[in-house]
Amino acid sequence: MTQTTREKMIAGALDLLSRHGVYATSLREVVQHTGTPRGSIAHHFPGGKRQLLQEALQLASDQVAAPLAALTAERGAVAGLRAFVDWWRRVLVASDFRAGCPVLAVAVEPLAGDAAEAVADNEALRAQVHAAFARWQAILTEALRAEGLAPARAARLAALVLAAVEGTVAMCRAARSAQPLDEVHQELEAALAAAIAAARG
Amino acid sequence: MTQTTREKMIAGALDLLSRHGVYATSLREVVQHTGTPRGSIAHHFPGGKRQLLQEALQLASDQVAAPLAALTAERGAVAGLRAFVDWWRRVLVASDFRAGCPVLAVAVEPLAGDAAEAVADNEALRAQVHAAFARWQAILTEALRAEGLAPARAARLAALVLAAVEGTVAMCRAARSAQPLDEVHQELEAALAAAIAAARG
Repeated sequence: MTQTTREKMIAGALDLLSRHGVYATSLREVVQHTGTPRGSIAHHFPGGKRQLLQEALQLASDQVAAPLAALTAERGAVAGLRAFVDWWRRVLVASDFRAGCPVLAVAVEPLAGDAAEAVADNEALRAQVHAAFARWQAILTEALRAEGLAPARAARLAALVLAAVEGTVAMCRAARSAQPLDEVHQELEAALAAAIAAARG
Repeated sequence: MTQTTREKMIAGALDLLSRHGVYATSLREVVQHTGTPRGSIAHHFPGGKRQLLQEALQLASDQVAAPLAALTAERGAVAGLRAFVDWWRRVLVASDFRAGCPVLAVAVEPLAGDAAEAVADNEALRAQVHAAFARWQAILTEALRAEGLAPARAARLAALVLAAVEGTVAMCRAARSAQPLDEVHQELEAALAAAIAAARG
């Protein structure tokens, strides 16, 4: 499948975000990183850096949500957890533990500056980060409800899974090792299995 | 207790890190943010931004570790979890959900640049982030071992607690709400209580 220039730039922004964070994901770096023509930025992203970040966040949200929803629907919550963990393990290993979650990166690093425009841009980015997290959590919640869990418990366990995997990916980068992810996965799988067994009575 | 200029600057760097991330924690911003004399940076931090970040990370590590160790030793693992969660809830609420964990901020945002000096600085910062996470995890592990858990299980549950709380704090910033932290705390407390009850047979 051939990527368009626009798609290449969005994927490049996502990669830069996941490795270096928001500041380093500059328009200039994205052009260099993707080898696309300099004039393309203004053409494809008239909203500038904010728009490029938003498109990258949307891609990040989709990349996780689509397979996660398909897999949990087909094979259940525990298989979904495994797929979620495996996704991030691949991101870590493929980058030699230099890349993590681009959504988390935007969650903890607002755009620099306190002009009114930066404040409005940051509010838009914050809302989109929240939407991505909420979307992933909703898929996990739905999978746990399908296993028989009560709605509130399913939502809490889904929040635990999402938070723990996000936190662990950052810990793995710092440790230059996937060991924290393997350990946390083992505990999360045990927690889901116990909750599902209890729900089935 | 009067803060020295040096202490003020380190505390200011920590605050900027936890709100804005690594890039925005510039030497100039720290001087402005803390109202300290411009010449103080070179005097107190001859290693420049890298040194200031390292001192801020050390302060962040100490601020959590000291009370966490004292509390878990005195009142056990579940009380320690509660104190850890309460610490971050206070950071979130006091900042109207604009600040999070400064250690996580450094974990996901390296210093900009690919010159040899930046690479070496980032390796030093990465190692220090890892040390802070490992220190907090070790305190939680020790507390769980004191409750009777086997060493490997205690370490895994401690990793789960640390990762989940770190991830949740970022989710709370995006949600502008402490609800995710309350939900995740409830699940973590249940997981610890179940593991402790099982260890006691």
